[in-house]
Amino acid sequence: MNRAPIVLTTDFGLEDPYVGVMKGVILGINPKARIIDHSHYVEPQNIAHGSMLLSTSYNYFPDHTIHISVVDPGVGTERSALIIMTPRAYLVGPDNGLFSGILGKYSDDSRSDTANIHVPSGCKAFRITNSEVFLTPTSDTFHGRDIFAPVGAHLSLGATPSELGDPVESVLGYAGPDLVITEDRIVGEVIYVDHFGNLITNISNTLLTEDANVIVEMSGSCIRSIHRTFNDGNTTTPNEPIALLGSNGYLEIAVPNGHASRSLLLSSGDQVILYKSH
Amino acid sequence: MNRAPIVLTTDFGLEDPYVGVMKGVILGINPKARIIDHSHYVEPQNIAHGSMLLSTSYNYFPDHTIHISVVDPGVGTERSALIIMTPRAYLVGPDNGLFSGILGKYSDDSRSDTANIHVPSGCKAFRITNSEVFLTPTSDTFHGRDIFAPVGAHLSLGATPSELGDPVESVLGYAGPDLVITEDRIVGEVIYVDHFGNLITNISNTLLTEDANVIVEMSGSCIRSIHRTFNDGNTTTPNEPIALLGSNGYLEIAVPNGHASRSLLLSSGDQVILYKSH
Amino acid sequence: MNRAPIVLTTDFGLEDPYVGVMKGVILGINPKARIIDHSHYVEPQNIAHGSMLLSTSYNYFPDHTIHISVVDPGVGTERSALIIMTPRAYLVGPDNGLFSGILGKYSDDSRSDTANIHVPSGCKAFRITNSEVFLTPTSDTFHGRDIFAPVGAHLSLGATPSELGDPVESVLGYAGPDLVITEDRIVGEVIYVDHFGNLITNISNTLLTEDANVIVEMSGSCIRSIHRTFNDGNTTTPNEPIALLGSNGYLEIAVPNGHASRSLLLSSGDQVILYKSH
Repeated sequence: MNRAPIVLTTDFGLEDPYVGVMKGVILGINPKARIIDHSHYVEPQNIAHGSMLLSTSYNYFPDHTIHISVVDPGVGTERSALIIMTPRAYLVGPDNGLFSGILGKYSDDSRSDTANIHVPSGCKAFRITNSEVFLTPTSDTFHGRDIFAPVGAHLSLGATPSELGDPVESVLGYAGPDLVITEDRIVGEVIYVDHFGNLITNISNTLLTEDANVIVEMSGSCIRSIHRTFNDGNTTTPNEPIALLGSNGYLEIAVPNGHASRSLLLSSGDQVILYKSH
Repeated sequence: MNRAPIVLTTDFGLEDPYVGVMKGVILGINPKARIIDHSHYVEPQNIAHGSMLLSTSYNYFPDHTIHISVVDPGVGTERSALIIMTPRAYLVGPDNGLFSGILGKYSDDSRSDTANIHVPSGCKAFRITNSEVFLTPTSDTFHGRDIFAPVGAHLSLGATPSELGDPVESVLGYAGPDLVITEDRIVGEVIYVDHFGNLITNISNTLLTEDANVIVEMSGSCIRSIHRTFNDGNTTTPNEPIALLGSNGYLEIAVPNGHASRSLLLSSGDQVILYKSH
Repeated sequence: MNRAPIVLTTDFGLEDPYVGVMKGVILGINPKARIIDHSHYVEPQNIAHGSMLLSTSYNYFPDHTIHISVVDPGVGTERSALIIMTPRAYLVGPDNGLFSGILGKYSDDSRSDTANIHVPSGCKAFRITNSEVFLTPTSDTFHGRDIFAPVGAHLSLGATPSELGDPVESVLGYAGPDLVITEDRIVGEVIYVDHFGNLITNISNTLLTEDANVIVEMSGSCIRSIHRTFNDGNTTTPNEPIALLGSNGYLEIAVPNGHASRSLLLSSGDQVILYKSH
């Protein structure tokens, strides 16, 4: 039996019984399962957001973690259901690109945003076909409860992916928002706004470490240096926005003791330009 | 010891410490208890909403589950506190009709919405009287913490209901919103709006399966057929609402990739009419 | 091994992956840890709010509970990180006054709101120094994940505080909102608004029990008596506010079946005056 946790990532929110019911189904199959809520506030049906959260949190969960991830606008259509084995986790969810951020960690393919991703070496993917483990009747609108929860629970009991599905060579990718990198600038965008109002971008910290002398430009706002933390005493003006190497690995924009999204009137989808000033 | 989970359903929300404190009390009594959050966003003091969520999720929790359910506008008054044993679960909470949806599954009484429900055969009900297990001082405003959490925890340790209370023959019912069924139409209403903006009605899917050729009418909006899932390619217009056989067993109204409640300006309490068009 | 739960209290909210990632880190170190969410909706960076929630919920968690508490506007600066042992719990978090409410329970010092609190007798405090247990690289913006979660997890495995830090004699206090007590009145304020719209004040129930014949005055509103519970039949007017001895130990203002904050247009920081009418 796999003693690692089952980690849930969905766009279901916590207002409704959807998440609680999935946990009921899991514990009905494996009464000893340990279930962690990662986030249930992926923006509804926003696969890019879900993929980013999964890939940035991925390394913080224990080895052999079983991720059940459901951001699933195509539920009930012909889209496949997947189990992916990576070197450190099982991924269970719809075949719609939700796992493309994680798979990108194992892939040399710079074109991983294309429609089809070849399963990276070291990983294996399976299309879920064993309907014997599904809840019946199997709804057309809630596969989180009827398919993904029981599949994840059976994996936690020791079932192998090949008992639950058929191997596939490729899975669907997802074209996340473009990052345009030229000699003097990087053009990215805000992916989401967090609980504190911080703007999380798609510009990786690794693009910044070599030369921290940068200018970040957003509509009507310009930040001249990258800060190390929220309140380091280097801000001179209240409500002055700062840029940070975010704890999730991506550049973020914050207003110390304030709410950057409301102060700057920026939210997901808005452009962020980073000038390298040599 | 009962190894099934303790399932919490309340209108407490997750912003405040109320739910966390209940879990602390439970684990103080039974350190091995497994606790699941079903929903803490029952509309405040809305017993009909709580009863519907409990009855529609009920079958997805394991056998012997201990439900601690607290939607309790009468806390601190003369209302009783209950333990109900059903063939598959223990129900712990106030005697105010919150469990009438579940009891309806075991009852032949078509008038189960009346003030008093005779406890169905196969079920047993107990009025909680054993104040030795209550926290002291016992508050008049938070029985979830002081009475229901310890009672549920003691049940999970193997206490029997008769050790905690006295048997009763009837419990309070709750008159949910009326469903008016005539030869050519069913008049129901929206019970709640979920996280996606879908409108969940009180019209059971079972009333629709015989003849799916129906018209759903809401204020200013008309839906001519029942869809199987959210995005099945049959919608021609963006923002066009669809009707679905909902995964919780009741008709729901959705806007694919949209938010039905905001698009249609409808929310809980609004009327939904279903015409059977032969 | 400590079998008591790890209890999380933060201002992180549940929308983002921050809390889920902390749980992943904890279970990666101690796969058997039991983790409870106390509240993740401390008002962002509001140490007084966090301190009050921790101290009012404190007695409801089991002996030996490990509290990991993160309301941390100074993360990444020179502020210390603490482990405090009290007679019934371990407290892990930033040294910024967040635990001053709990420490006040063990202190005779009436001036516990001053900048430095001498660690009360019966308690011990340690400045966390053992960076071997930190996640690396250790971020400057998310010590909840990189320092406090692993420290709490190691405590749950049986590590002693002295293995993780160096003893200190005093910790930082936090000046909560003033309570002005004179012969005929008590002037306090609303600390927070709960999920039901109830206004939770900083006026302790113990200041009221001797003489319940009081008048509570807020801007434009006057309440002439203290009620025992929400719906005790003593209110004559719909939407009439009542005052209650709150279940968390402090006076609260409620509107039965209503939302006091919206009805009275009051929220955190607003003044509440209590006149003792002999």
